[in-house]
Amino acid sequence: MCGKVVQISQCLKTCSSHILSSMGSVSIPPPASLLRPLETPQRLLSGPGPSNVPPRVLAAAARQIIGHMHGEMLEIMDDIKKGIQYAFQTQNNMTLAMSGPGHVAMECAIFNTVESGESVLVAVNGIWGERAAEIAERIGARVNTIVKPPGGYFTKEEIEQALVEHKPVIFFLTHGESSSGVVHPLDGIGDLCHSHNCLFLLDAVASLGGSPILMDKQGIDILYTGSQKVLNSPPGTAPISFSERACKKMFHRKTKPLSYFLDMGWLANYWGCDGKPTRTYHHTGPISGFFTLRESLAILAEMGLENSWNRHKEVAEHLHKGLESMGFKLFVQEKHVRLPTVTTITVPPGYDWREITVYAMKHHNVEISGGLGPSSGMVLRVGLMGYNSNKANADKVLEALREALKHCHKSKV
Amino acid sequence: MCGKVVQISQCLKTCSSHILSSMGSVSIPPPASLLRPLETPQRLLSGPGPSNVPPRVLAAAARQIIGHMHGEMLEIMDDIKKGIQYAFQTQNNMTLAMSGPGHVAMECAIFNTVESGESVLVAVNGIWGERAAEIAERIGARVNTIVKPPGGYFTKEEIEQALVEHKPVIFFLTHGESSSGVVHPLDGIGDLCHSHNCLFLLDAVASLGGSPILMDKQGIDILYTGSQKVLNSPPGTAPISFSERACKKMFHRKTKPLSYFLDMGWLANYWGCDGKPTRTYHHTGPISGFFTLRESLAILAEMGLENSWNRHKEVAEHLHKGLESMGFKLFVQEKHVRLPTVTTITVPPGYDWREITVYAMKHHNVEISGGLGPSSGMVLRVGLMGYNSNKANADKVLEALREALKHCHKSKV
Repeated sequence: MCGKVVQISQCLKTCSSHILSSMGSVSIPPPASLLRPLETPQRLLSGPGPSNVPPRVLAAAARQIIGHMHGEMLEIMDDIKKGIQYAFQTQNNMTLAMSGPGHVAMECAIFNTVESGESVLVAVNGIWGERAAEIAERIGARVNTIVKPPGGYFTKEEIEQALVEHKPVIFFLTHGESSSGVVHPLDGIGDLCHSHNCLFLLDAVASLGGSPILMDKQGIDILYTGSQKVLNSPPGTAPISFSERACKKMFHRKTKPLSYFLDMGWLANYWGCDGKPTRTYHHTGPISGFFTLRESLAILAEMGLENSWNRHKEVAEHLHKGLESMGFKLFVQEKHVRLPTVTTITVPPGYDWREITVYAMKHHNVEISGGLGPSSGMVLRVGLMGYNSNKANADKVLEALREALKHCHKSKV
Repeated sequence: MCGKVVQISQCLKTCSSHILSSMGSVSIPPPASLLRPLETPQRLLSGPGPSNVPPRVLAAAARQIIGHMHGEMLEIMDDIKKGIQYAFQTQNNMTLAMSGPGHVAMECAIFNTVESGESVLVAVNGIWGERAAEIAERIGARVNTIVKPPGGYFTKEEIEQALVEHKPVIFFLTHGESSSGVVHPLDGIGDLCHSHNCLFLLDAVASLGGSPILMDKQGIDILYTGSQKVLNSPPGTAPISFSERACKKMFHRKTKPLSYFLDMGWLANYWGCDGKPTRTYHHTGPISGFFTLRESLAILAEMGLENSWNRHKEVAEHLHKGLESMGFKLFVQEKHVRLPTVTTITVPPGYDWREITVYAMKHHNVEISGGLGPSSGMVLRVGLMGYNSNKANADKVLEALREALKHCHKSKV
């Protein structure tokens, strides 16, 4: 018996030394915190996103995966493409989902359509314009901005003046500025850009599905969104579409895009958008992320875009009415530019915004956020998107805010 | 009653026209294919990855999400960091997971540590070296390669000669070359690089957890892997770690990294690796992807790295024995450089590799892949990784191959 133990121990030692060669063995032990079970709380995610994920989409996330190049996967990607075409209201063939969050789509749009030294015009009325400007600067573009304080938006005259002055190859605008709560008017901007030989790039991460966008009719050349707002998927995929005009620019570059991962030449083939008979491995797509994105787009297709827009509008108005009746002041003055998905509230005088958000989270499991970037310290933000967009949730938020106002005494001046 | 209907219809019309302004309404209908339920088959994913996801990890994917900056989320990210430190056997503080697939980690490593005009040395013995060279070329590096045909690997003398000749700031090597089935010997290469003032960058997407790596002891400066191989999470996150030496290089650049999304200055803060008291919003991480990655790392920590390495070795040897007894020829001749996670088999003479893979999938629901990049047409590839790494699965693959050989008559010469 003793002999047997020695043999086994000898064998283990031999195996182990064989495996580990001359470098010695494992010296860093498994971390204790990782050996505790995963715990995650249940919350109403009523900040500016991500939103709660509906059970049907969670069920898609829990499916066993398949290969990223299996026929069934490519079909699911084809379904996603059609779902995005519907959600964006576009017939663009060059329509797909990025394997990353909204920032990846923003970089993809700029990396592919802009070359070093080219002029880019960015409208900055919150954080997203700032980000787009930074991305374009990093790749060596000549970036010019037009700037409004948070809550502001741009007239067509202001945009045209800047187009004339800077002669950009692309104009970046944020549709739903989630940091300020503004939804930007779109009518006429596409035509304006085209008459100045400029592409119109629109960020719709926070607005798509919650506020009307008609990509083709409105002359939008590049449009992208994220999976985790109105679409109610977990974050990690980002629908994007390019017009013929945008394709002409990006596929006639003098230089390769700086990123292989973001190269639309490769991505167009992976997504079956380039007309070639075979689809080549480019990167491994987030298979579960595509399952959930398909399910989210199916829910939107079943509900209908107009119904989704109307519901967000109604729920936002219900929320706004409740807020005003409690004495809150909405940050965006003009009703027609209030973003239906994310509402900004002026921080009530004498209150510390942090205490309000902490109170709502701690006592009501309700997420309310502060400002972001230029709107930091100025606003509270409430997002009710997709699955979360209903009056019962609006009432939960109102109740949490009502209680917060009562109990955050210390912060009163 | 009729009056009421007219009123409602009137109201809907008003709402709709209010919503849609002057641009007209939705003209592209919901796609029929998206209205069909999502269907996905059950398969043994025994190709080079992704692997099957265990029920415990799928359960993590099905959890309701929380906010990307919630305290509990930051704790989960801290757990992931510790889990990666264990899996990599490193004490590097600069350890985190990228919000994207392995290619994103590859770009992150190169984008942050290399500036335009700097010399980079890439070892190419399969597709991953080719990719790394392409990525470095796109950002303006002076790229030199040392090249071996698929199945080959490099001696320390060959590497040293190239280090002397090209004086690179970084040397890229693939640990587990999944396209050729080679696991590259590591001993001494870190020291060699450091003695030539060069960083050692190692791609371990296909090998981490399945073949020994001791990041600190082996002098690896940058190491990354993917979530979807031995770790058995869905694809979409990629663990990465940087040594002090790598940090010194990347945080003393003259220029900003070209990508905002990949900028390690921002990412270090988001992951709490820069010592600052607050963590700032950079991008929205793939929350469910982090749940699943934490669960995968916990499974590895519970099992123990050595046990995982040993199991992969045993299962691979069982598979190899079975293959050889059936008359198959293993593509990699030298036993000690056979990658335990992905086995390459020389395509048997007189057979079309495509027919074999199609047969195994169609009749056995077993995935067997062809070659990739330089190994295309030369090999069949079988991957048994993490959850999939057991003798029963190896036997399923052997059975599928046995039947495929019998039935793929037509392709015989």
